[in-house]
Amino acid sequence: MSSEPFFRSRWVQRPEHVKELAPTALPEGFRSAGIAAGIKREGLDVGLLVSDREATVSAARFTANALVAAPVAVARAADLGALRALAVNSGNANVSDGDRGMATAHAQQQAAADALDLDAAAVGVASTGVIGRELPREKLVAGIRHAAEALAPNAQAFSESILTTDRGPKCACLEVALPSGETVRLAAQAKGGGMISPRFATMLCFVQTDAGLAPETVDLLTGVCVRRSFDRISVDGQLSTNDAVFALANGAGGVALEPESKDELALGEAYDALLRQLAIEMVADGEGAQRVGRVVVTGATEVVEPVARAVADSPLVKTALLGADPNFGRILQAAGQALAGRSPFVVDLAIEGRQVVSAGTVVELEPGEWEGLEQDVAAPEVEFELTVPGEGGETEVFFSDLTHDYVTLNSQYST
Amino acid sequence: MSSEPFFRSRWVQRPEHVKELAPTALPEGFRSAGIAAGIKREGLDVGLLVSDREATVSAARFTANALVAAPVAVARAADLGALRALAVNSGNANVSDGDRGMATAHAQQQAAADALDLDAAAVGVASTGVIGRELPREKLVAGIRHAAEALAPNAQAFSESILTTDRGPKCACLEVALPSGETVRLAAQAKGGGMISPRFATMLCFVQTDAGLAPETVDLLTGVCVRRSFDRISVDGQLSTNDAVFALANGAGGVALEPESKDELALGEAYDALLRQLAIEMVADGEGAQRVGRVVVTGATEVVEPVARAVADSPLVKTALLGADPNFGRILQAAGQALAGRSPFVVDLAIEGRQVVSAGTVVELEPGEWEGLEQDVAAPEVEFELTVPGEGGETEVFFSDLTHDYVTLNSQYST
Repeated sequence: MSSEPFFRSRWVQRPEHVKELAPTALPEGFRSAGIAAGIKREGLDVGLLVSDREATVSAARFTANALVAAPVAVARAADLGALRALAVNSGNANVSDGDRGMATAHAQQQAAADALDLDAAAVGVASTGVIGRELPREKLVAGIRHAAEALAPNAQAFSESILTTDRGPKCACLEVALPSGETVRLAAQAKGGGMISPRFATMLCFVQTDAGLAPETVDLLTGVCVRRSFDRISVDGQLSTNDAVFALANGAGGVALEPESKDELALGEAYDALLRQLAIEMVADGEGAQRVGRVVVTGATEVVEPVARAVADSPLVKTALLGADPNFGRILQAAGQALAGRSPFVVDLAIEGRQVVSAGTVVELEPGEWEGLEQDVAAPEVEFELTVPGEGGETEVFFSDLTHDYVTLNSQYST
Repeated sequence: MSSEPFFRSRWVQRPEHVKELAPTALPEGFRSAGIAAGIKREGLDVGLLVSDREATVSAARFTANALVAAPVAVARAADLGALRALAVNSGNANVSDGDRGMATAHAQQQAAADALDLDAAAVGVASTGVIGRELPREKLVAGIRHAAEALAPNAQAFSESILTTDRGPKCACLEVALPSGETVRLAAQAKGGGMISPRFATMLCFVQTDAGLAPETVDLLTGVCVRRSFDRISVDGQLSTNDAVFALANGAGGVALEPESKDELALGEAYDALLRQLAIEMVADGEGAQRVGRVVVTGATEVVEPVARAVADSPLVKTALLGADPNFGRILQAAGQALAGRSPFVVDLAIEGRQVVSAGTVVELEPGEWEGLEQDVAAPEVEFELTVPGEGGETEVFFSDLTHDYVTLNSQYST
């Protein structure tokens, strides 16, 4: 177990009322398991997570890709506000396999329901792995049955069973002290080397709390926190067919939170920090990534998003980040591309707090300043602040560099 | 001089009425020069091209980037229908240098006008090279004067002076036999390793013909041919700040073409083939490129373009092309991303004529077919045909693979 704190990005502060527990701990009333079902060549590949309380409420978010995996289609049709269990596999994404793939995703859901004595509609499913290959149904179903017999009150094996090319598990369990004096637990297990990984697509995240929440609250909090975390990252600008976030709240801790109360706000702050740190970890764990950039764009409401995406997804910006090169020209070019057809193009740009472009014109740096800038951009996390014309909008995107390992990983694998 | 024919892509046929002359030949009444002015560390870096006939008509097209180089701003304000000369430099793109950069671009134009006894408005200018550095004005102006003394009736030095990271000159001179029995010449010199090159941005193309054309005709032909060539390529999806195409028609061959005549159509076919071959050469010469892909998308009018771009710009598709991996899953994923929010997602995909996805479901290939597919995608040019829902639209994009050399080129250079 690493002794490094979970909250380690400069861009995410641990809220003062939040304490880190063992990363694979689970809130009260949750159990999980992870087993090796033979879908991958080796390692854990089937995970099962269950809330023991009938009163559990839930929320979910899925990829916006028009091409969705069979498990996404099946999960979307489940009772998303009252999920009790999640059945997940890694090693195969179950995409583009037609009716056979749909039948397998239904079998995945039904196997968990049978093993846990639940309605199928109370089971969410997710898959991640290779696209366009048959997911072996028998292995998956047997694996789920096997996992149901191995359920334990921690996420040790579960957090490993959902991984593909990740360097290691991404999980945390937090103890959240509420203004009312009570404490609740909030945990999450995630996987993902960015928006889409090399042979194995997808980001997945599973969130649990033993707080008692209204169904609308878990949905609202999940929506807001996903927008501020997994929606704000890019490894290669590629949107997966399988992205899914599931959040379950079971009230097993005996603390019910009133909607719009200070307690809810405090839990929301913890939830937000949890997902942002996990999202940044996905970027840092992007294929071959060595450095993480953050671009903050302020300006007209309708242009900040395309500008931030254009900068974060530019292979020229990403290779400059790899090279620790404060190459502002590539940032201006990418921003200008997103603003095609608009004028005037008058932007300010600061890198690590140093103004390098002012009102569209390059700032002549003092002697030594360039060297300082070069040192700054060699850090593990680098910040770019861009101001474009207009007002009212501000956004951010976290992005990885583009490395030789990315090219190797993605070109040497053969389906 | 290479003995390889100019028309060498499988995707561009040499029209039967077109004969290839020496690639650096020029049509009647055009002269050019290229000299070393010291803007680059070594090699030719200032080019000048002039039409000797006062009756010359012209057309131009420029980048859509909101951030444009000073020479683009100056050229746009010139008399674009009646240009007589072009003054070009490589090694420095003259971008984001504020008033100083604008003054330098004006000096570039004025120096050519003075040397050739023309109005400044009759001179087009273009620059390509590093962004955000001062372009040395004195060297540039002296270089233009020097070039004016070296003008010769060929494009040998000119075609070299415009290059940056290109592997070699991209130029051709064609003899076009018209239905009327006359012949005219059509030539072009281009540079570009894609939409934007590593340290040196931009594609540039200079077209000349000794045919007599109406100003509207040269503008119309240029617009159509650019849309079918330089608008249809992507190395890294990055739009330069300096892209420019200039076309000059001087009538010096004594053959005037009537608008909408068969002769004009025949010249247009030659012009179209010329620019398409040059555009494909830019992709093949993309940074580190080893293979060229062509994606053809048919379906609803409004979706074929974003789908084709999403496929062509996907780093996952590009690394699969590098790896000679017939990875259709990545093509489906990229197409689905472009269609986010739409449904149903039912697509057909053929790679090199082999159907691999039918109505959204992977086709089970016969034994041996997969091996055949793997051989096909190892060729220098690979074709992907994608059918998405809807009707009325069809488009194509030519794209390069993403290689280690791209990462090396773009990460190891430091501004």
